[in-house]
Order: sequence, then structure tokens, then C-alpha cells
Amino acid sequence: MGDLPGIFWVVPVAGVIAVLFAAYLIRDVLRRDPGTKEMQDIGNMIFEGAKAFLKRQYITIAILSVVVAVLIAVLVGCLRGEEGIPGMTPVGIAWRTGVAFMVGAFCSAISGFIGMLISVKANVRCANAARTGGLKQAIDVGIKGGAVSGFLVVALSLIGVTAMYFAYGGHADQSPHLIVGFGFGASFVALFAQLGGGIYTKAADMGADLVGKVEAGIPEDDPRNAAVIADLVGDNVGDCAGRGADLFESTAAENIGAMILGIALWKITGQPIWVLFPLVLRAFGVIACMFGVLLVRGKESENPMNALNRGYFVAVALSIAGLVATVLLMPKWTGISNGWFIGAGIVGIVASIITIFVTQYYTEYRYKPVKEIAKASRTGPATVIVQGTAVGFETTLPTALVIGAALLLSYYFGSLSGFDNPGTFINDGGAFGTAVATMGMLMTCPFILAMDTFGPITDNAAGIIEMAGIGGKVRDVTDRLDAVGNTTKALTKGYAMVSAGLAAFLLFQAYMERVALLKGTPFDSINIASVEVFVGALLGGMLVYLFCSMAIRAVGNTAAAIIEEVRRQFHADPGIMAGTSKPVYGHCVDITAKAGLRQMIAPGLLVVLSPIVVGVVYRLMPDSLHYDSPMAVGAMLMVATIGGILMASYMNNGGGAWDNAKKYIESGEFKDDKGNVRGKKTPEHAAAVVGDTVGDPFKDTAGPSVHVLIKLLSTITLVLCPLFIG
Amino acid sequence: MGDLPGIFWVVPVAGVIAVLFAAYLIRDVLRRDPGTKEMQDIGNMIFEGAKAFLKRQYITIAILSVVVAVLIAVLVGCLRGEEGIPGMTPVGIAWRTGVAFMVGAFCSAISGFIGMLISVKANVRCANAARTGGLKQAIDVGIKGGAVSGFLVVALSLIGVTAMYFAYGGHADQSPHLIVGFGFGASFVALFAQLGGGIYTKAADMGADLVGKVEAGIPEDDPRNAAVIADLVGDNVGDCAGRGADLFESTAAENIGAMILGIALWKITGQPIWVLFPLVLRAFGVIACMFGVLLVRGKESENPMNALNRGYFVAVALSIAGLVATVLLMPKWTGISNGWFIGAGIVGIVASIITIFVTQYYTEYRYKPVKEIAKASRTGPATVIVQGTAVGFETTLPTALVIGAALLLSYYFGSLSGFDNPGTFINDGGAFGTAVATMGMLMTCPFILAMDTFGPITDNAAGIIEMAGIGGKVRDVTDRLDAVGNTTKALTKGYAMVSAGLAAFLLFQAYMERVALLKGTPFDSINIASVEVFVGALLGGMLVYLFCSMAIRAVGNTAAAIIEEVRRQFHADPGIMAGTSKPVYGHCVDITAKAGLRQMIAPGLLVVLSPIVVGVVYRLMPDSLHYDSPMAVGAMLMVATIGGILMASYMNNGGGAWDNAKKYIESGEFKDDKGNVRGKKTPEHAAAVVGDTVGDPFKDTAGPSVHVLIKLLSTITLVLCPLFIG
Repeated sequence: MGDLPGIFWVVPVAGVIAVLFAAYLIRDVLRRDPGTKEMQDIGNMIFEGAKAFLKRQYITIAILSVVVAVLIAVLVGCLRGEEGIPGMTPVGIAWRTGVAFMVGAFCSAISGFIGMLISVKANVRCANAARTGGLKQAIDVGIKGGAVSGFLVVALSLIGVTAMYFAYGGHADQSPHLIVGFGFGASFVALFAQLGGGIYTKAADMGADLVGKVEAGIPEDDPRNAAVIADLVGDNVGDCAGRGADLFESTAAENIGAMILGIALWKITGQPIWVLFPLVLRAFGVIACMFGVLLVRGKESENPMNALNRGYFVAVALSIAGLVATVLLMPKWTGISNGWFIGAGIVGIVASIITIFVTQYYTEYRYKPVKEIAKASRTGPATVIVQGTAVGFETTLPTALVIGAALLLSYYFGSLSGFDNPGTFINDGGAFGTAVATMGMLMTCPFILAMDTFGPITDNAAGIIEMAGIGGKVRDVTDRLDAVGNTTKALTKGYAMVSAGLAAFLLFQAYMERVALLKGTPFDSINIASVEVFVGALLGGMLVYLFCSMAIRAVGNTAAAIIEEVRRQFHADPGIMAGTSKPVYGHCVDITAKAGLRQMIAPGLLVVLSPIVVGVVYRLMPDSLHYDSPMAVGAMLMVATIGGILMASYMNNGGGAWDNAKKYIESGEFKDDKGNVRGKKTPEHAAAVVGDTVGDPFKDTAGPSVHVLIKLLSTITLVLCPLFIG
Repeated sequence: MGDLPGIFWVVPVAGVIAVLFAAYLIRDVLRRDPGTKEMQDIGNMIFEGAKAFLKRQYITIAILSVVVAVLIAVLVGCLRGEEGIPGMTPVGIAWRTGVAFMVGAFCSAISGFIGMLISVKANVRCANAARTGGLKQAIDVGIKGGAVSGFLVVALSLIGVTAMYFAYGGHADQSPHLIVGFGFGASFVALFAQLGGGIYTKAADMGADLVGKVEAGIPEDDPRNAAVIADLVGDNVGDCAGRGADLFESTAAENIGAMILGIALWKITGQPIWVLFPLVLRAFGVIACMFGVLLVRGKESENPMNALNRGYFVAVALSIAGLVATVLLMPKWTGISNGWFIGAGIVGIVASIITIFVTQYYTEYRYKPVKEIAKASRTGPATVIVQGTAVGFETTLPTALVIGAALLLSYYFGSLSGFDNPGTFINDGGAFGTAVATMGMLMTCPFILAMDTFGPITDNAAGIIEMAGIGGKVRDVTDRLDAVGNTTKALTKGYAMVSAGLAAFLLFQAYMERVALLKGTPFDSINIASVEVFVGALLGGMLVYLFCSMAIRAVGNTAAAIIEEVRRQFHADPGIMAGTSKPVYGHCVDITAKAGLRQMIAPGLLVVLSPIVVGVVYRLMPDSLHYDSPMAVGAMLMVATIGGILMASYMNNGGGAWDNAKKYIESGEFKDDKGNVRGKKTPEHAAAVVGDTVGDPFKDTAGPSVHVLIKLLSTITLVLCPLFIG
């Protein structure tokens, strides 16, 4: 550690600052007035429901994690030692990987839990701020509550990865390989958190809507609907806890992958800082985002989105400054031009900005795509679905172009740096360039996550105001906030997806580096023209569809359970509909939690087991077949990534567009050919509601889970590749 | 030609027999009674509409074809000569490729046209047979009418490929490379025929349903609906002409690809018959299917599907016998065991049988998936869509497993044969094994195509009976036939998709062989871990989504035009609704044709241009980047194929399942929890109709076009690979 240059110390400093900042935000939010007794009661019900679900969920995940950790240790340690890691015995590697897995899983769980905890405290305070102080104060509470998640998640990832790195010796060539288990643990928890939360939130939403709005004809968030608290709980466990775990995973796994790629640069220069470079970049990003959050100031008279955008652009500008500073402060080496990495990093940052605009174009009703879907409502729900599918499919074009261009450019800039170890097909500087682009994109992660968590807080605030029977001007404020929250949620999904796409490429390279290390021979080609590799690729593509099928079906099954329960309550107590007695909200919360958790196991295990099965089965084939198991698993991973990016683009954007087509009709701006407003309670609106309901499990369950799927596949293959090497 | 063994002569013999058999079938169908004056009038309207559309369509395609043929000749000839083909000048190759393209395009157009012509003559005769003779006779007319297409398509492909091969010298090492243009021409026409026909048929169907059943509340095929003739025309131009061109393309392109792989075996043995082997196998298949068709005998008292299945299994058994005979009659060579190719061929045949059962499981309402979708109708259209999506996504599992297993096994059997030229990564016997499996699967193609065309004939027959106001027992007969027709159409799509999947792998190998020939160095690896290749793969995956988006949107746009027109007619002449005056059917036919053709251009060109753009742009990049353009295009092709297979599986099977969920509810077998029948005119039925309408463009426009897309990408890269080689 003595040879670390001064610049590295920004990492622990930023980690501590981020935690202190989060503590300041928590204090700031909690000291605000939580509103009337009724509002507090509702808030408490949401809090209790969310806590109960997370408790159950984390117990399930903990059991699965311990089983997996032991399996990893046994498989990696006994079946095959990783002879390739210098100076390590198989058993030493095995327990270290298992421990790293558990620490990663634990940190991820903590991130999700804290984020959720604060957001269920912030929601009622945001509602009250809207009630007593207006838009400006409500934005303030919303963004600060959201930022707690953002900063804690990134701080935990930064501190966790750094601590594990030094705990495992701090050797540039060895430690990054030992901490891959940390990334796997994080992905593992993230998948179940996102999937379980996603199933919960959309099953509750669909169930509540279908039985309330459609069957009983009562409005959304009506207190007579027994499923309404479950719906509000869902926003927190799906969007806050799930997304928090998702982005914790991103920041952790991608850091580790980038550190592995940094080893190639260390080999050339002997400077260990290249391995730690990703952490330094992340640290500057945290500081940049802090200023961004502090500068979000709403105005009563403008679209709240503008306030968030101003803060975001401050964070972007400071991130670029941090990137430039980091690169310029890196030590020099003969024949190497570090400066090109600035270009690679900017490519990543620009990719994130473009993604945000593309997402806005496809999902906001100011633009043509959503208007087209709304127009299709004139001929009924079928055309709404067909048109929305066409729009969702089309969004794969900009997604693929942005990711493709970002990869090509960042690889190009990186290759100009001059870093290259001879003997492999891959240019080490180029590969590191894609890592820098990913890191550049993820520099603004705390801010993006703050915006994302802003969504469920304001959504909840609107629900609390509605349930508490407060109307008038306050409703206008919360409705405006809610609309912004929907947009920010869509933006984060686009961001998470494109960053997953970029990150995937860097994780592939890390996988190949690791296989090469373990085999002791170069491994720089994944030849999909080879029959067994092509079949691996085909199975990878299929995995995405099958996973989505299971996730979507899980929502349907869970929603059916909720509908039965609400119907039962309406039937058992006619006083509920009359408004004279209260439904038992807790039953719905319980049923959703149980059903949701049961349904998350199968798709989760599918993802974990598929690459292992393919890798091990291929490895066990007779030698005469010449099956290349690591290559086939690599192809499975890559094609699943491509398929996953495209599928997620379709599901996230298609779902968002359907949602906003409905909102467009509700806004009263949608007119027929004669100029008459066709708003709520028209057949057009009913058709658009069908689109919105279909989009719900797409955009909030399957789509976001696919991001995690991609990365879990990457980390699982990274950790378990010793099993595939015969 | 003197060194061809006797077995080859089965090829021209089978070609001639197939043509004579088709002529016999035509005569047999045409001499039957076309029924009452009214039925004949309706039949004539359909005939005129179909003829008018095909005329327009073929003019458009002809113009595009000539442009493309000239472009190919210029590009291939001037920009770069194919120095690799022994004894050929660049100009010699250029004009031969251009001519082969035109011949392939022409044969494909002819196939589609003839198939359509007979089926619009058979429909009214089938209707009359149902009216006067009952089920048995109606099946007889339906299958014989369908078989005309089946045999003419395969005969034309067989004769065309053979004639081109010998016209271009009949040299084993050279001629297969010169006739790739034939396959490209066939694919080119097939894409536009399938796409234009698919847009036409589903736009007419959706338009007619939405404006008739949904808006005006009149039954399907009601003569008051101005779009009803367009709908019946659509069945012929989409399902008959489109599918005919699709399968012509399959049989031609896959023959040529297999012949190119046969060159490697010729190199070892010096026996040219290995290059012609695929044609011999096809010839035996034609004869096997002839017996199968002749043995289809319906019974009044049984499900007509059983009669078709009996015929199919006869064709399968005879195909296996033909396969065994072909392999055993092949000349021997030291160290080579030909016999293993029997195993490879049987793998292909078994794959087709499994595919058919899987398709039945997912799309027939006897089984759980469709029942689940029907059950979801209780909670409205949204859950029908969600459940159907889950089912459609799930079908990718068996599809991928069947294709994957077939590839691995047939490659394995092929590799056991002992054929292998040293120096490349790919086992030549193994690659040829996958070709034999594909050929084995396609042996029963004439029968499958007969079953497929049976679908629109019976669909039309039912429509004609309905429009002519004939009811009672006759309607029962045509309804039963129609239901069988839906099943056979679904089966063919599954078959076409899996055969496209198998064929794709053989076409990749052919592409790589050809690139190696032109580069003069081995080319046996497509390394998707290389950044530019990965981006090519990503773009390939995206291409499938974008193409489907455009195809689906085209249906929506065209349907909107029809709806406007029918509304206009209802409004302009109230006598139409009252039944006192007839609507102007011709206007709808015209509008659909014009709009459909305009909409097919953009997605068609997207497919043609994408690989060219990627290949040429990469080639023009500076050398310092080391971009491997043929590899990137190969990756694009392979990942588009994987994505296409999965997407087609989803769309075809999901669409079929939605269709039959609706039929299940209409059948009166669907009940609620209390045992009450929930049939037509219930909310459940309305919800299922939404699913059916969404499924229409999926299963009849986008899905089947994706098969052709995959193969067009293969043939286009095969022909134009000289452009990518720098």
C-alpha cells in the first residue's frame, strides 16, 4: 500500500463524506412534520407492510445465499483449485470467495433496506410538504429522501470493494480476482430483490387496479380497496429496495470487472493505481453528485423536471471535471498517453445523456410515439397493444446504436493510449477504455438513483393525500410530482440498461482474462461459428425470454391471489363499499408478500443454474468432441446480454409509453378528429388502461430484472469459470 | 457430367414426376363443380382481388429485383473481383451471379403465383364439396388444392437449382458458388412476398374485424362488411403466395448452402455426387410426399386432422427409407463411413416431428397453455395479453432445445463419418451432417406445404359458405375444416421456423467457406469477444426487433386505411347495413393492396441494406483499427438468426395460442367456477378477441416474415461477401 499515490486517498474520503452526507439528509428529512394523524397512520401502514415484506424477503434470500456461498466454496475449492492465482492454495481461494460473496450479499441487502426505510419515512413528509408548503418544499423532501439511497448505495459499494481489496492483501495482480465473489453476492441479492420486489409491486398494482378500477368502478388509491396499501408498499419494495440493490450491484460488479482489466495496465507499468483507477473515478463522481443534489431547487411555477435536470447537469459537469483531474493526476509511463482515457470517459457520460433524451422521446406524451399509441385507442385495446409493441420494439434501435457507438469509440480511444500486452487478440488499452466509459457513465449514479427514488416517494405522497381524503390544490401539486416521478423512473431504467450493456462488455473481458489466467494460456476468442458455442449462444438468447416469461407469469399469478382476496372482503363485509367500515389491508399485504416470494425462486434459480449446467455438461463431454466449455459459456453470456439489452429496452420503454399514453388521455389533451376532448371514462381511456396494465409487469418486473440477469450471468460465470475448465 | 453415378438421375425424374403430379391435381380440382352462381360470384371476386394484388406486388418486386440484380453485378464485378473462384474472371462471376439472381427471383414469383391461382380456384370447389358431398370430399379438394403448391414449389426449386448448376458448368468446386445468386433471388422475392402478403392479409383481417365485429356488431365474413372480400383475398396472398415463396426460398437456399458444404467432401473423395447429394435427398422426399398426399382419406366421423396426420406419417416413413437408400447408394471411400449421415438425416426428421407436437401443445386448446390464456379472460383483455405473452415467451424453450439438440447431434454424427480436411477448426463431416439434418427435415416439405395451403382454402371455403348465406350442417362441416386449417397453419410455421434455424447454421458454414475461398486463407472463427464483432452482433439482434416493429406498424397503418373506407361506405349508403344494397368490395381490395405494398418497402430494404452497410462501413475503417468486416457481418448474421428464431417462436406460437383461446371460448367448452358456460358475447369472449387481434399481425405478418429475414440475411451475405473483404 505504500506505493499508492496521493490521488487514491480520495476514495476513502469520498466514502466517508457520502455516508456523512446521507446522515445529514436523513436528519433533515426526519425532522420535518409528518402531517395529520390520518396521514401518519397511512404512512405507518405502508412502513409496516414494507418492513414485513423485506424481512420475509431477506430471510429467503439469506437462506439461498448461505447455500450458494457454501456451494461456491466447495465447488471452487474441492472440485478444482484455481492454480492460476499466484501464491494461493485452492482452499485459500475457496473460503475467500465464499466470504466475499457473503459480504457482497450483505452490503447489497443493507443498501436496499436503508433506501426503503428512508423512502417510507419521506413519503408522508413529502405529502405534508405538498399540503402545507407547496411544490418547492415537496420537491426538496422528495429529492433529499431519494438521495439517501443514492449516496449510501454508492458509499457502501466503494467502501466495501476497497475494504475487501485490502483485506485480501491489496496485491494488484491477485486481489481483484479474489473479490469477484463480492460482485457475485451483490448480483445474487440484487436479482432476488429486484425480482421479488418487482413481482410484489406489479401484482399489487394490477390486482388493485383490476379489482378496484375495473370491477368495482372505484378510483385509484381509493381507501375502500383492500389492496391499496399493498400497492403503495409495492412502490417502495420494488422501486426503492429493488433498484437500490440493482445499482449497488452495478457499481460493485463493474468496479471489480474494471479492476481486473486494470491488471493488464499494471503489468505494463507496475503502477498499482491502474487497478484502483475505477474506484478513484467513482469517488469523484460521488462528490460531483453531492453538489448536484444540493443545487436542486424547485420553483412553484415551473415543471419540477427542470429543477432535477439542472441538478443533473451540474453533476455531469463536475463529473467531467473529476474525470479530467483523475486522468491528469495518474502517473506517467513512457510511450503511454493516459489522456485518451478522458475521451473514453466522456463517451460514457455522453452515452448516458443521450439515453436519457431517447427515453424521454419514447415515453413522454409531448412526443410522437406516445401520441400514436393514444391515437390507436380509438380502435380499441388491441390496436393500443399492437402500436405499443411496435414502439417498444423500435426503441431497440437507439439503444443498440448508443451502446454500439459507445463501445466502439471508447475502445478506440483506449487503444490510442498505447497500453498493450503482446500475445492476445484484445487490445488492453481498448478494453480498459470501455471500462473507463462505463465508469464515466456510472459517475452520476448517486444522482440518478436519487431521481429514481424520488419517484416512489412522490407516488406514495400522492397516494397518501388521496387516501387521506385531501383534495383541491394539494392534489394538483402531488399529481404534478407524481408525473415527474414516472418520468424519472423511466429515465433511470434507460440509464440502468445502457450502463448494463456497457458494463457487460467489460465483464466479458474480465471473464476472458480470468479464464486465461486459470488455463495458463491466452483466451481471447469466443467463436460462435463452432457448433457447441453456437448452441450455447442460442440457449443464452432463449434464457432471456424464458426468464421474462416466468417473471410475467409470476405477476399474473400473484395478482390473481390479490383479486380473490379483495373480492372476498367486498363480499364478506358490504360496509367496505359503503365506506362505513375499513377493509383489512394487512391481509392483502401478507398474501402479496407470500405469493411474490414463492414466485421469485424459480426464475432466480433459472438464471443461477443455466450457465453452470451448460458449462459443466459441456465439460463432461468426451474429449473427442473438442467442446470448449468456457467458450460456450462465454457465448451464452454474450448473446444473453445482447438479447437482454434489447428485451429490456422493449419492455421498459414500451411499458413507459403505454403508461403515459393513458396519462395523456387523462390529461384532457387528447382529442378526436372533431376536436372533442376524449378523456377519462371514454372507450379510448378504457383501451389505454389495458395498455397500461399490460405495460406494468413489463416495465417494472421483467424489464428491470433483465438488467440484473445480465450482470448476474456475468458475475456467476466470472466466479465459477474454474468449473468449466477441463 | 459423365462421372455422375446412376443415383443422380432420381433428381430430374422426381422433378418431372412432381410437375406431372401437380398437373394431375390441377385437373382433378378444376373439373369439380364450383357450386351455385352466388358462390361462383364470390369466388370470382376473391380471384380477381388476389390476381390484382399479386400483379401489383410482382411489378413492385420485379422493379426492385432488377435494380438489385444490376447492383449485385456491378458491385461484385467492378468493385472487387472474386479472384478465389478457380478459372473465373470477375466479370464472368458478376453476370452469372446477376442472372442467377433473376432466375431465382422469377422461379420464386412463379411458385407463389401458381400456388395462389390454384388455391383461389380450389376454395369455391371445396365449399361446394362441403355443401354437396360432406367432410370427406371437402378434405379431398382441400388437400389436393394445397398439394399443387407443395409439389410445384419443390419441383421448381429442384429443377431450377439443378439446371443452373449444369448451366454454369457442372463443376463441383465452382458451380455451387456461382449459383448463390439463385438463392439470394429466391430469398429476396420471398421476403417481399411474405411481408407484402402478410401485411395485406392481417390488415384486411384486423380492419374487417374492428370495423365489423367490434364497431358495427355484425358477424365475421358478413356480406355487409365492405372489407370482407379483402379479408378472403388476404388469406390467399398471405398464406398461399407468401408461404409458397418462403418455402421455395428455403428449399433453394438450403440446397445451395448444402452443396457448398459438399465441396469439402468432394475435395477428399473426388466424387462430385457429394455436391449433388442434397438434391438427391430432396428428390426422394418429393416421391415420399406424393404417396403421403395420395393416402390422405378423410372420414365423416373423425377429426380431419387425423387423416392429415396419417398421410404425414406415411411421408415421414418413406422419407426415412429414401434417406437410407440414398446414403447406402453413395459411393464408398477408404476411411469414410457414409452410414453416419443416416443418423444425421433422422435427427432432422425427428426434429420436425417434435416441433409439430410442441406447436400443437402450445396452440391447441386441448392443452394447458391455451386454457390458461382463456382463464385469464375473466380479468379482462390486459391479463389475456400478459398471459399470452408469457406463453409465447415460454415456447422459446422447446424451440431452442430442439434446434440446439438437432445441431449438436447431427454435427456429431456427421463428424463420425470421418470426412475432414485438415487445417480448419470446423469438422467438414460435422458441418455436412447439419446440412443432411436440414435436408432430412425438408424432405417432407411438399407435404407440409400442402397442409399449409389447405388452411387458406378451407378458411376461404368457410367464408364463401357464410357469405352465400348457406347455413346448417354445411356450416358445421366448413367450421370443422376451418379449425383444422388453423392448426395446420400453425404447424407449418413451427416447421418453417425450426428448419430455418437448422438451415441457418448450414448457411453460416457456407458463408465461412466462401469467405475463406475468396480470402485465400482459412476463415473458421467468428470471435464475438472482439469489440467490432460484438457490436455487429448487437446490431443483428436489434435488426429483428426493428424489422418486426416496422412490419407490425405497417399492419396497423394499413388496417386504419381500411377502417376509414368501410366507415365511409356505411355512412354514404345506409342501405348497406340494412342489407338492401351491396358494399363496394373492390375499393377495400384496392386500398389494402396499395397501402400494403407501400408499407412493405421500408422493412424489406432494411434487411437488404443492413448487412451491406455494416460490412462496407467496417471495411472502409482505417487499417490501424484491425476491424474484421467479414467476421462482424458473420456475427450480425448469427445473432440475428438466434434472435429471429426466438422472436418467431414467440410471435407464431403466442399468436396461435391467442387465436385458439378465443376459439376455445367460442366452442362453448369454457366455463366459470360455477360451471356456467362463458361463450360468445360474454366479457370473457370480448377479452379473448383482443388477444386474437393482437396475435394476428404477430403470427401472420411479423413471425413468418422473420423466417425469411433470417434466410435473406444468409443469402445476401453469401452473395455479397466480396464487398466486405478488404
